[in-house]
Amino acid sequence: MRVLVLGGDGYLGWPTALHLSDGGDEVGVVDSFLRRSYDEEMGVDSLVPIEPLEVRTAVWEQLTGRRIETFVGDLVDGDFVVDVVRRFAPDTIVHFGEQRSAPYSMIDRAHAVHTQHNNVIGNLNVLYAIAEVDPSIHLVKLGTLGEYGTPNIDIEEGWLDVEHNGRTDRMLFPKKPGSFYHLSKVHDSHNIEFACRIWGLRATDLNQGVVYGQQTPQTTRDPRLATRFDYDAVFGTVLNRFVIQAVLGEPLSVYGSGGQTRGVIDIRDTVECIRLASVHPAEPGEFRVFNQLTESMSVHEMAKTVADAFPGVVEVENVANPRVEADQHYYNVTFTGLPSLGLEPHLLSRTLIESLFPIVERHRDRVHRTALAPTVQWRSTASELRR
Amino acid sequence: MRVLVLGGDGYLGWPTALHLSDGGDEVGVVDSFLRRSYDEEMGVDSLVPIEPLEVRTAVWEQLTGRRIETFVGDLVDGDFVVDVVRRFAPDTIVHFGEQRSAPYSMIDRAHAVHTQHNNVIGNLNVLYAIAEVDPSIHLVKLGTLGEYGTPNIDIEEGWLDVEHNGRTDRMLFPKKPGSFYHLSKVHDSHNIEFACRIWGLRATDLNQGVVYGQQTPQTTRDPRLATRFDYDAVFGTVLNRFVIQAVLGEPLSVYGSGGQTRGVIDIRDTVECIRLASVHPAEPGEFRVFNQLTESMSVHEMAKTVADAFPGVVEVENVANPRVEADQHYYNVTFTGLPSLGLEPHLLSRTLIESLFPIVERHRDRVHRTALAPTVQWRSTASELRR
Repeated sequence: MRVLVLGGDGYLGWPTALHLSDGGDEVGVVDSFLRRSYDEEMGVDSLVPIEPLEVRTAVWEQLTGRRIETFVGDLVDGDFVVDVVRRFAPDTIVHFGEQRSAPYSMIDRAHAVHTQHNNVIGNLNVLYAIAEVDPSIHLVKLGTLGEYGTPNIDIEEGWLDVEHNGRTDRMLFPKKPGSFYHLSKVHDSHNIEFACRIWGLRATDLNQGVVYGQQTPQTTRDPRLATRFDYDAVFGTVLNRFVIQAVLGEPLSVYGSGGQTRGVIDIRDTVECIRLASVHPAEPGEFRVFNQLTESMSVHEMAKTVADAFPGVVEVENVANPRVEADQHYYNVTFTGLPSLGLEPHLLSRTLIESLFPIVERHRDRVHRTALAPTVQWRSTASELRR
Repeated sequence: MRVLVLGGDGYLGWPTALHLSDGGDEVGVVDSFLRRSYDEEMGVDSLVPIEPLEVRTAVWEQLTGRRIETFVGDLVDGDFVVDVVRRFAPDTIVHFGEQRSAPYSMIDRAHAVHTQHNNVIGNLNVLYAIAEVDPSIHLVKLGTLGEYGTPNIDIEEGWLDVEHNGRTDRMLFPKKPGSFYHLSKVHDSHNIEFACRIWGLRATDLNQGVVYGQQTPQTTRDPRLATRFDYDAVFGTVLNRFVIQAVLGEPLSVYGSGGQTRGVIDIRDTVECIRLASVHPAEPGEFRVFNQLTESMSVHEMAKTVADAFPGVVEVENVANPRVEADQHYYNVTFTGLPSLGLEPHLLSRTLIESLFPIVERHRDRVHRTALAPTVQWRSTASELRR
């Protein structure tokens, strides 16, 4: 299979590219390095040093003999997208190429506008490129469980059978996203569903939980193949951030009471989910949605898990929640699609958490401690960023 | 009341500004004249000549002594929006300032991107301006019934009480829009609901039906106060287009079987709905949705109504539907919100239709006949436009 990974230089895009390449797929990577520029803007960096994309792909080729073709450019440039899709001629496009931080989207107006423009227009260009070049290309699009919010009913996989006044219809699951970033993903999903309907495109929308972990069997073959490990309050995902706070002797900062419950998934399962979705594509015209998680945990439970695993004293601190979200709520997410395709989950284990501590220890001198505290306030229209 | 009308130079924005000014409100108008530039691009023009905005407002002031302040600029320029909102200090912002044609948004990739960029980013800037300048400003936002599509259940006013697996929640009504334009409005609605939730903004989202008619008690006071009358296949709304086709002796072009049913509303009711929503604002934090129509009709019924009213022979022609839409479907739209605020509808009458014929007759030499036929194909990613 020929797979084009959009955002293939990022935290998950890069390990996905390696996982697919390792499995025998011909892989191409598209990236504009916007994620690296956000680091410059925020004055932070991945805890684990990451190599330039050209070094990464060269090391991979040396080790495996497998080539990963790279295309540098921005998805908001529609002509570029058409050109790349035409030249690479993929069977599958895996789309990670979006601004992926909720707090980043909530910094101020400019960041909200950037996020929605970058994500919605980029995705629209991808849809047009597929429709123009080859409508049989399967789009595997990364969404997030955060699109659903925390409804008081079970969260189904994208669609809901609705009964109302004695009549029924199968409708898109009503969403209540929690940031302008999450909203951009909801907009994307609507645009994709429409493209499937009018052009007969085939798409799988993956509503992913919070990812934890930093290593896959491929990234550990050489330190230069490492993927990002983000710890800052803007781009760090919560479980990874807790691990880093534990090692640094900082209190684990739980927003509000920590009763917020979220779906989570191991990075090794993420890359395998992408592969499974690619191997078993949606039908022409089908807008297929999978919830991509392996278990649900409250933020408090995540903190406790990290604190218990750490060989030393760890303080858990409840800080004022900078977000606007319920911290006591019903949460039950259906996920049968990916398991039915063969996913065998790595559930969150003490072993996994313990494996992260030495990674952090090795790079602890790289941490900018001021970047750990939340600076972006959902209720405010302009946040003061600490550099 | 101080009301700022965004898109106040357009087909409905202008009569709304006059209706509010006539009722004693202090009215400001914001426009970038993008709608006029679309005419240049398409090589068409309003059937009825329209004056430049400065002439329109000058005539209104001469006739009534009432001043309408004007602000020329683009809503995608966020600083401009903040500046205008700060200077005018409105109680209510009525937001018509979006690209409003479904076919225009489906011309090709550039037009889809323009539509979603223009509408979504412009609206986002309006939300930020309200939140920054004065969160008590009531946003009255124009949406469209086309956001809902044609579900097999009753269409409620924006929200739906969902029961699922024995649990319940009140959720946004699931939508299935029919074009990239309609999608942009769905994206707007999601962004607005979120802004109400996190910033406590107050908003009324008006999901409007197909508007017909061209005159209001204010626009008829002087020919220079006239609003647009669009007849082309891109910007003309279906009932107005049928009237024009009848006068020109062209067959009324019904897309497909004409079984598509749509909500419709008289232009005089549109402007009154806006006034009613403004006088009775949403509560702080409330995202209120009204369906803005007065009756539902199939496209075939609309054609028949026009043909019956016309004093002469009119042919009705079923042409291949350029859109992707069901032409046999259930359609039942709830609309109780605006009637409960006091709306007394003008239902579609033979008298109204008859009043349009002489207007068309007077300006028949201005018609570009080639612009009447549909040139934008939903299934194609790039349409050939006739100029």
